Amino acid sequence: MPHFRVVLVEPLYEINIGFACRVMKNFGFKELCLVKPRTPITETSRMFAAKACDVLESAIVVDSLEDAVKGFDLKIGTTGKLASPRNVLRSVVPPWHLHELMKREGRVALIFGREDIGLTNQELSLCDVLVNIPTSEEYPVMNVTHAMAVILYELSKAHIRPKTKLASAKLREVALKYFSDILGLVDFPKEKEPKARLVFKRILGKAFVSQKEMHVLLAFLHRVHLRLSPHAARKS
Amino acid sequence: MPHFRVVLVEPLYEINIGFACRVMKNFGFKELCLVKPRTPITETSRMFAAKACDVLESAIVVDSLEDAVKGFDLKIGTTGKLASPRNVLRSVVPPWHLHELMKREGRVALIFGREDIGLTNQELSLCDVLVNIPTSEEYPVMNVTHAMAVILYELSKAHIRPKTKLASAKLREVALKYFSDILGLVDFPKEKEPKARLVFKRILGKAFVSQKEMHVLLAFLHRVHLRLSPHAARKS
Repeated sequence: MPHFRVVLVEPLYEINIGFACRVMKNFGFKELCLVKPRTPITETSRMFAAKACDVLESAIVVDSLEDAVKGFDLKIGTTGKLASPRNVLRSVVPPWHLHELMKREGRVALIFGREDIGLTNQELSLCDVLVNIPTSEEYPVMNVTHAMAVILYELSKAHIRPKTKLASAKLREVALKYFSDILGLVDFPKEKEPKARLVFKRILGKAFVSQKEMHVLLAFLHRVHLRLSPHAARKS
Repeated sequence: MPHFRVVLVEPLYEINIGFACRVMKNFGFKELCLVKPRTPITETSRMFAAKACDVLESAIVVDSLEDAVKGFDLKIGTTGKLASPRNVLRSVVPPWHLHELMKREGRVALIFGREDIGLTNQELSLCDVLVNIPTSEEYPVMNVTHAMAVILYELSKAHIRPKTKLASAKLREVALKYFSDILGLVDFPKEKEPKARLVFKRILGKAFVSQKEMHVLLAFLHRVHLRLSPHAARKS
């Protein structure tokens, strides 16, 4: 994956600087560069950075966007304003367009604009690609750190390793066999059995049932089956 | 799509209540329910709600999570804590698992926990499904409104209608023809021409070039072609 730098252009609010650090660390991003911040870094920034104060302390402060992105291979701008389709300057991609980027090497700058006026046209034209988060037309202006959360989330998605094991085909079959047997034991209408079996199978499938969940379900089905079986009936 | 209610359980900070409203409206969600808020709604909340004060003003306040979700068909909880794969109580799905949900009808409650301690085990067990945002292991605890931004973004994704027209196959062919002709005019090595054409085609493809962008590119190629052509050479 590329090396990322997050660039905040002339941030206005100390809270946003703090929140930016927290969001970055939440998704594994560490390098923050502030272009001419319009607020000092304060105790409030540190409070909102919470356990990401290390990101805040190591933030670089520079005088221009050019300095912030010097030596970076790809400059990605973010914009809340959607242009008419005819405006090439604001021709944008959605956040999920960035997935492919995670398979590349290189230095990438992710540029977030001012809270009040975003990025200027000159700054936008410096960017190689512009990302826009599809929002409601009624209120498209997101807080900069919420936009950052969405974009860093999309980027980090590409690196997720699964942790939960799917229920195996073998256990699925056992569950279905139990279900099928139970249908017989409760005198479920014979002609409706195939459909019921399929519905049961599909529900387990759509839920992506895990191995552990399946074990719990099997324990349940096992007990139901045991209780309904003729042998149990004789005993009671 | 379902009818959604966003539920905030015992929110602690007035800023978060405001930000929650803004994030909701950004993604087209309007119904907020506060369970026993631990802070009053203040001027600060209104300031952070920004242009989503209507969401704030119409927020419902209730005394228990049970009241908040009464009459809702599906209760979706959110959790920052990832359990061991053996803990069924915290068996979670990622946010993109919710896409399918947008194709259903019904009443859905999206439940967000306290800033300090999240949702209790009792509250988690009330939920039909738990969503977890995959985060860095180093700092997995997100601010509640940033988590909300990510989840509402994922939900609203399913409703995006494309606005930009792809460059048509016809224009692609014209661009490729120009490119091909120009290769000839600049004495590009014949044996490398097919590969160059393919690279050019692939770059346009990967960029999902729009109709408007293609027109600009064609104007450029047209001029290059004109300048390089033998007729132009004679004239100069």
